[in-house]
Amino acid sequence: MLYVIGLGLSDEKDITVRGLEAVRGCSRVYLEYYTSILTVSIDRLSEFYGKQVIPAYRETVELESDEILRDADKEDVAFLVAGDPLSATTHTDLILRASSLNIPTQVIHNASILAALGSTGLQLYNFGQTLSLPFYTDTWTPGSWYDRLEENLRVGMHTAILLDIKVREQSEENMARICFTAPRETPLRTSAISSGPLFPPSPSPALRVIVIPVNRDLILHSPSFLEAILPSLSPSLSPSLSPPSTPLSPREYQQRSVSLWVPADTAPHSPGADSSTNLPDS
Amino acid sequence: MLYVIGLGLSDEKDITVRGLEAVRGCSRVYLEYYTSILTVSIDRLSEFYGKQVIPAYRETVELESDEILRDADKEDVAFLVAGDPLSATTHTDLILRASSLNIPTQVIHNASILAALGSTGLQLYNFGQTLSLPFYTDTWTPGSWYDRLEENLRVGMHTAILLDIKVREQSEENMARICFTAPRETPLRTSAISSGPLFPPSPSPALRVIVIPVNRDLILHSPSFLEAILPSLSPSLSPSLSPPSTPLSPREYQQRSVSLWVPADTAPHSPGADSSTNLPDS
Repeated sequence: MLYVIGLGLSDEKDITVRGLEAVRGCSRVYLEYYTSILTVSIDRLSEFYGKQVIPAYRETVELESDEILRDADKEDVAFLVAGDPLSATTHTDLILRASSLNIPTQVIHNASILAALGSTGLQLYNFGQTLSLPFYTDTWTPGSWYDRLEENLRVGMHTAILLDIKVREQSEENMARICFTAPRETPLRTSAISSGPLFPPSPSPALRVIVIPVNRDLILHSPSFLEAILPSLSPSLSPSLSPPSTPLSPREYQQRSVSLWVPADTAPHSPGADSSTNLPDS
Repeated sequence: MLYVIGLGLSDEKDITVRGLEAVRGCSRVYLEYYTSILTVSIDRLSEFYGKQVIPAYRETVELESDEILRDADKEDVAFLVAGDPLSATTHTDLILRASSLNIPTQVIHNASILAALGSTGLQLYNFGQTLSLPFYTDTWTPGSWYDRLEENLRVGMHTAILLDIKVREQSEENMARICFTAPRETPLRTSAISSGPLFPPSPSPALRVIVIPVNRDLILHSPSFLEAILPSLSPSLSPSLSPPSTPLSPREYQQRSVSLWVPADTAPHSPGADSSTNLPDS
């Protein structure tokens, strides 16, 4: 059996009981380690599970999946994914490969950033399509995400914009050379300058999601909701006004975006250190 | 501390380790018991937690929340919600009440049906606004949800339609009389007849979500993905073509909807029995 198991949004205790039992019964445990950065180290996960966790980089999953699936028809193998395994980065390819080899699979769902957007106080029913804001380079400044944002605004929907993250692929050059370095994130301030007033400067180097709210439920209950819920979220996830502490009128508030971000103090983001996110590598 | 804890999509083992630890440390444990029906009985939850679980009906939560929050500034109280606590039915009101009484709160996220839609093989980024299809009555056949569907179709987005469920409120008459009976669900066949060919007859009395896919990623990988993933999902959640076993051409397939449903054999749905869902009471 190949178990594809979501780890949730924060640390080793966000796995479900069902997921933990599955992991503990597996002979090999892989962690998808190239589309997100966890708040918790591989050593701490290994200790909690009582199993050595093997980091699976992009080249392992995309080119060497035979090794992950080896003997999975005779024994149990776990493939761990931050957040929910079928929500952002979906790894359907691995499930299809297992299926073609007649290896049974089981998906164990968990909290996804796409559902945790409810932490902003906005009703998830009122979100339109989710956007990814890719890294800009000197030769590539994609604008298609902005057209999608306009489509959402036109039908009165909120928009969640996921920010790109490069876990190891620092440049096209080192991807080609298979030479990787420490994680980095979308330089939001740069995007903000080029995209107009909707985008705030990043309140934190660990900012991962921008939410653009559109309709009246934000005015009706979100300011007080945000105030109430800010201290109540699990350590890696806090909604924040941007800039965080500015008092806003309801009208101004509606025109601002809300950010879901990882507070720097709970998720130190130094090169090589583990940090927190649940975002896809787009 | 008031803990607001998601239970995930299936049974007692879908709670997170963080959530389970919180529940076991609480002096009172309430279960939100009026917007969803679980696959697991309250007795089984109580046994697994080692705590007596108290069902909280609508009147308890909306009119007697003081009892839930009693002494929560001095001891720990848990409020359990099927799925994720801030996704579908959000219970923000309870969090705001706690906040106004200076009771600290903590939200513990879990899998939501809104993220588990990824089980259909469709990319969640490509879903537009989520719709609720309410119960039709002799005097009320709301059509606004259909306009929202058209907005999604116009911008090429998939649509998830959540089906109404009446856990205890069987009619306006017995709501007024505070006289409740067994759960019932949207009579989908009736809605299908009045809404045109997009809607299949319900493949199961436990059908809860219809997904209307729009764009090409369904053709590209969903048929094989669905085939691979059907046996791999946790017991309470299976995507299904409708009708489930008809072979379809890619064009026909694109024009059909996909249903996420609760197989009748894993979720017996007799009056009074516990069954499974994660849907809001709209």
